[in-house]
Amino acid sequence: MTENQNSSRFEKDAGNYRFCDARAVGQLEPCTIVIFGASGDLTSRKLLPALFRMYCAGGLPHPVTVVGCARSRMDNDKFRRYLKESAKQETDFDDHLWQEFAAHLHYFALNYDETSFRQLADHLRELDIVTGTGGNRLFHLAVPPSLYGTIGGLLGGAGLNRENIEGSGWARIVVEKPFGRDLVSAVQLDESLRRHFHEKQIFRIDHYLAKDTVQNVLMLRFANAVFEPLWNRNFIDHVGIIAAESLGIGKRAGYYEESGVIRDMFQNHMLQLLALTAMEPPSQFEAERVRDEKVKVLRSIRPFSLKPDDNLVLGQYGEGIVDGNAVTGYRREEGVDPQSLTPTFALMRLFVDNWRWKGVPFYLVSGKRLKSKVTSIVIQFREVPHTLFQNILAARIIANRLELWIYPEEGIRLSFQAKDPGPRLCLQTRTMDFNYRDNFAGPGFDPYAKMLLDAMAGNQMLFWRQDAVEASWELLTPILHDCEVCRGRATLLHPYPAGSWGPEGASAWVERIIGSGAEK
Amino acid sequence: MTENQNSSRFEKDAGNYRFCDARAVGQLEPCTIVIFGASGDLTSRKLLPALFRMYCAGGLPHPVTVVGCARSRMDNDKFRRYLKESAKQETDFDDHLWQEFAAHLHYFALNYDETSFRQLADHLRELDIVTGTGGNRLFHLAVPPSLYGTIGGLLGGAGLNRENIEGSGWARIVVEKPFGRDLVSAVQLDESLRRHFHEKQIFRIDHYLAKDTVQNVLMLRFANAVFEPLWNRNFIDHVGIIAAESLGIGKRAGYYEESGVIRDMFQNHMLQLLALTAMEPPSQFEAERVRDEKVKVLRSIRPFSLKPDDNLVLGQYGEGIVDGNAVTGYRREEGVDPQSLTPTFALMRLFVDNWRWKGVPFYLVSGKRLKSKVTSIVIQFREVPHTLFQNILAARIIANRLELWIYPEEGIRLSFQAKDPGPRLCLQTRTMDFNYRDNFAGPGFDPYAKMLLDAMAGNQMLFWRQDAVEASWELLTPILHDCEVCRGRATLLHPYPAGSWGPEGASAWVERIIGSGAEK
Repeated sequence: MTENQNSSRFEKDAGNYRFCDARAVGQLEPCTIVIFGASGDLTSRKLLPALFRMYCAGGLPHPVTVVGCARSRMDNDKFRRYLKESAKQETDFDDHLWQEFAAHLHYFALNYDETSFRQLADHLRELDIVTGTGGNRLFHLAVPPSLYGTIGGLLGGAGLNRENIEGSGWARIVVEKPFGRDLVSAVQLDESLRRHFHEKQIFRIDHYLAKDTVQNVLMLRFANAVFEPLWNRNFIDHVGIIAAESLGIGKRAGYYEESGVIRDMFQNHMLQLLALTAMEPPSQFEAERVRDEKVKVLRSIRPFSLKPDDNLVLGQYGEGIVDGNAVTGYRREEGVDPQSLTPTFALMRLFVDNWRWKGVPFYLVSGKRLKSKVTSIVIQFREVPHTLFQNILAARIIANRLELWIYPEEGIRLSFQAKDPGPRLCLQTRTMDFNYRDNFAGPGFDPYAKMLLDAMAGNQMLFWRQDAVEASWELLTPILHDCEVCRGRATLLHPYPAGSWGPEGASAWVERIIGSGAEK
Repeated sequence: MTENQNSSRFEKDAGNYRFCDARAVGQLEPCTIVIFGASGDLTSRKLLPALFRMYCAGGLPHPVTVVGCARSRMDNDKFRRYLKESAKQETDFDDHLWQEFAAHLHYFALNYDETSFRQLADHLRELDIVTGTGGNRLFHLAVPPSLYGTIGGLLGGAGLNRENIEGSGWARIVVEKPFGRDLVSAVQLDESLRRHFHEKQIFRIDHYLAKDTVQNVLMLRFANAVFEPLWNRNFIDHVGIIAAESLGIGKRAGYYEESGVIRDMFQNHMLQLLALTAMEPPSQFEAERVRDEKVKVLRSIRPFSLKPDDNLVLGQYGEGIVDGNAVTGYRREEGVDPQSLTPTFALMRLFVDNWRWKGVPFYLVSGKRLKSKVTSIVIQFREVPHTLFQNILAARIIANRLELWIYPEEGIRLSFQAKDPGPRLCLQTRTMDFNYRDNFAGPGFDPYAKMLLDAMAGNQMLFWRQDAVEASWELLTPILHDCEVCRGRATLLHPYPAGSWGPEGASAWVERIIGSGAEK
């Protein structure tokens, strides 16, 4: 990133001024990235490719060291060869750059015990001296959550949790969801980490938040003066948030059977999208101030019971046709209990009980094996307060709608009523469109890379803070309890054919919420 | 239009519902259109081609008769042959349809005296009987305004002004601008017409108002709930209205020398565009209620003096280059006084002193021989009230802007700030666009045809009401007096090169007002 160090904060590009955050540029401190679970899937599929791309783009600090840790016995060479296989999948793989990058990769075989971690501490200190990384360390836990507490404790025991002591730099720990499976387990998980790390050292990844178009929700709302005046109960009828998948559960039956759609999608991504959409403007675009506002929203969501249960529709996919291919039902997926009651679809209606949103329903929809992969936020405005055209037009005028598309299109669509050309007065729904990719040059940035970069920069903006984790579980735990324990999932669970928009009674709603996004 | 008679009011088209005014369909009463000045330019270039196109499209009432009147001696055959020459210029001229249409064309040679008009009355009565047009008559005055009073009086003398008497139908008189050259002459002109015709019989044409995209201003504002909440001094910084021409005055030196840009453009088109932009929502979309609101706006415009004269910049084009061609300056145009002080450019700053607009400047710009032909209305919103990004971004965030394009593009553009893709926080101005022509099938509708249709239907919505004519002259007469009499035009008039955006001191402003419309 050194070539950008002198870049102006105020850049002119194709007639438009760009305002850029100059602070992040060239300010990354040297560090060591320690990956636990280095022989696993996440490392080879996501983390290493992201790091290599960042290296190629000049986006890593200098110097940087990557230390892979796992139980497997390997030396540095074997580790580098193993990772090269993944890196070579990249379309623009450059062998020369890989050789350069691979020199920064190290492997350290360990058991998850005190001896191993003392040796690791010694090894990292030696590397610091050799490579000049200054004692700054990012511990990335690419391991099952059951190991988070263990590793946190071992890092603490080896003194690797300490910051700014005897010449050491910073120490940060990065964990991936799930953050527990209910309120109690989430609190326990946090306690096990917090025994050795402060909240500001803990980076809880939700890679959804790093997508450009998700980040853009806040820019749209708070860098423009025209949306915020409309962004409340006076003008908005309802909000739809959808994250639909056309894929099934793939090879993740073990995980999915235990979690289901509410833990898999709602506790994290869906509630984050809701928080971004509903939050008050913070006074500053600063990690703690933004996270303060998000947690306020989560705490304002009205707790709901399932009686009457029109606040929740759960579904499970049966066999059907997706993209022209016959696919199997959930209960016949490999590794799934043939009597499974795990929901693969949910439509949830939430209310945010505050001054801005009182009475405005937020419809959250997510599911597997739906008609197509769509992620979007839909702001459905209220109808015009008065139709001047009532003496002319027979029907009510269709209300405006703002769609923020996250996938597959990335963009914004405002639909409005316009006059048809010609002598008669005819109104027709038309749209103003903005397509994100058409309008910006250059490749998109991988959310994983963005997350690693922010963790190295110590910017917690896009990471979950524990109070928000707990607020989300506080909302969802009673629902899960109702579904799973009290009434049993069976009475609540409705089948739907794969390739549809969900169970009968929900699908028409879903199509209405998706709006034109469904046509893509 | 008979094929549309059973059309539903609620039509489904490409997934969008259209709401149409069903009332106008098939409800035109049979009538006779009497054109005074039938041997003149306006008739052959505009009126007849419009009528023929309407005939071809099934848009004329049935039966219909067109009677051309002028001093020239012609018979029906010669008149039809004369008009056919113009009609043949149409790209899709169909000789068979022309023969059909021409059978409805009649010619009546007259002098502008009582005898002739008594004979005309007799002739029209005979035609009524022969053709079955039921005594409904539209008198279209395609003659110089100096004849309006004379013809009005002669029509009155011959009883042709009377409605619903002894079996007669309606009588309407259509006049074109200019409606006077100052307040006194506008009042006099009206008095001469009103001696024989009621206000509801008088149709004052401003063909600008019949353009689809101009009409769409009201649809946008009042058929959508998202614009109106922003449409006021709390959110709008200023409004720009521009009607720029790249052409010079052509062969109209005689007219232009007497009028200049303020009479030619501001008194009518520009103030109408302002009224559409600034008016309050009427309770009904009904001619009198809409015109009530427009005249309220015109009466709310703050009268202004020219001291200090930053409320007005006048200009006159010199020689220069337009579209790559060297063109002559105004004073060397054929028929122009070589010392002429007639302004061909004006930038005017107006304030609408009411609750909604207090303090918001409206910049009106019009001129000949400017860089390009552009007509648009630009709503410049205020900046965000608070920049959350002040700790990150060095510069102020560019405010939103809504552009309503009337020419050459017809459409809408909303510019806003969006995040650049990538790991750094960069904001950049991007746009959501709607292009009117891309989104509607079928040809546009000629404003003249729309005006004739509305006059036949008795719908005065798009025509000037006398109170608005007087309000506009009330505003502009003192300015014209200041310029032309008190201080003389010379001190106020600034030269500008043809092909520029106006005189120094105004051009930068104009470019700022035009916004992205200037790039077209």
